[in-house]
Amino acid sequence: MYTPAQNAQLALLLEVAGTPKPGNVDRHRDLADLRFEHFLAGSVGAQRGLEMAADGAGVGPAFERAVEGMATQSAGNTQFGALLLLVPLVRAAREDLTQPVVESVVEETTVADAAAFYRAFDHVDVFVDDPPAEMDALDVRRGSDAVPALEDRGLTLFDVLERSVPGDDVAREWVRGFERSFTAAERLADANGTVLDRTAAVFLSLLADRPDTLVATRSGEAVAAEVTDRARDLHERNALETDREAIEAFADDLVERGVNPGTTADVTAAGLFVALERGGLEL
Amino acid sequence: MYTPAQNAQLALLLEVAGTPKPGNVDRHRDLADLRFEHFLAGSVGAQRGLEMAADGAGVGPAFERAVEGMATQSAGNTQFGALLLLVPLVRAAREDLTQPVVESVVEETTVADAAAFYRAFDHVDVFVDDPPAEMDALDVRRGSDAVPALEDRGLTLFDVLERSVPGDDVAREWVRGFERSFTAAERLADANGTVLDRTAAVFLSLLADRPDTLVATRSGEAVAAEVTDRARDLHERNALETDREAIEAFADDLVERGVNPGTTADVTAAGLFVALERGGLEL
Repeated sequence: MYTPAQNAQLALLLEVAGTPKPGNVDRHRDLADLRFEHFLAGSVGAQRGLEMAADGAGVGPAFERAVEGMATQSAGNTQFGALLLLVPLVRAAREDLTQPVVESVVEETTVADAAAFYRAFDHVDVFVDDPPAEMDALDVRRGSDAVPALEDRGLTLFDVLERSVPGDDVAREWVRGFERSFTAAERLADANGTVLDRTAAVFLSLLADRPDTLVATRSGEAVAAEVTDRARDLHERNALETDREAIEAFADDLVERGVNPGTTADVTAAGLFVALERGGLEL
Repeated sequence: MYTPAQNAQLALLLEVAGTPKPGNVDRHRDLADLRFEHFLAGSVGAQRGLEMAADGAGVGPAFERAVEGMATQSAGNTQFGALLLLVPLVRAAREDLTQPVVESVVEETTVADAAAFYRAFDHVDVFVDDPPAEMDALDVRRGSDAVPALEDRGLTLFDVLERSVPGDDVAREWVRGFERSFTAAERLADANGTVLDRTAAVFLSLLADRPDTLVATRSGEAVAAEVTDRARDLHERNALETDREAIEAFADDLVERGVNPGTTADVTAAGLFVALERGGLEL
């Protein structure tokens, strides 16, 4: 039996290995400056922060430590969003890994957790959209410089993430009881094939469900909609089993265009963790 | 900076990801019952044992714990030989990761370390040759049942491994000051390309140097010699850069025939660890 922190690390490794995961680094594809080995190193580096969460540390400090460790490799942000989902899930697994428990975990976050979350941005560049004007002082890209403004307003980490919805489907998990993460876990358990085949299938199904918010932020809403339309078509006609060439071509096309559905990969990693913890995946 | 235990885990991950590694599981190839994800899980499972070594536990108990954790996944033996090299190297890194220090570490092993080594065989099936008749009571496949005989004869873990040479090039590292592991580290540092490209190049160079002892044990000396002749030819004409097709064909051929140069992969993992610890590889 693996500990929750080990299952979280394994979830990160299985997520990046699952292939094809169109637009993302996978077992068979690298992006220009973000390669498979950076994700391996990021997973190892995140370990201490994940262990802190398992030992009952605050979500913010555990997340900051995980991100700091993840960012030891030179490519920078490999698994920031995945860790923002995994840390509260690991923390919930101390008690019981259910949606109500993880909802309590995130709702009980504090201003100190929010401050640690902002400090995490000091360790790594994360691609985010400009905030609304009234939130400018709280732009996450300010990192720890934003902490005084955050404390003035008394915002908890839950409050901060609530303000990032819509537009960020990692934040949306926080305010919606990790609905898609738990759905992904069920799909992983119900899917056929090896763990890595299941990972690819569930990634595609999630991408078919909703436009990826990282794609929307970086490439625009139209591209995000197009990607989800293509994913839905491939998913509906079960292309992973019936037309592998079509999905591999889709994957190559997204990588070439620099279209990176990274949020969908984050939710996939969260789903892998939940499935591993609940015995829904045999390895 | 990663801790030595983390670098050891990362070495296991980089080793399995390096491709092409003819005859072994790699980023692009699975074996029939041994897949990429089993190695990912094995690396995560080995973590506690590696941490024990880093914390100064005996080489035997740390190794047994690493193997027990590694064997949590269903495919069984993924990294037994690699861990038998990594555990003393991690232990040496507490002081100084040099050949003389790791030589002291293995020479100072005790009968208790040997007993733990035998118990490790209770956790996993490892492919080994029949021992000579006078060593029958000490056949490692007896696992913990062999411990009384071991204690009767007062053999340390170093003594046990010394008796496995020739015929097992992991054991040979123990009695030769981890010569090839340190050579591999130098080659990794001197090679060109990404870490995974370097891993593939150094694997091929090691396979070109000496017949793989796992291949000799499982497929016979003639096959082991043939494999090394082909590796030497490909290495000498720099096929990784000039004739990639030839080396990919070699890799596919070995996988199809079930010829698995696993000992060479073990030494590659050890080399990766030494190179990571000494700053010879940037990630």
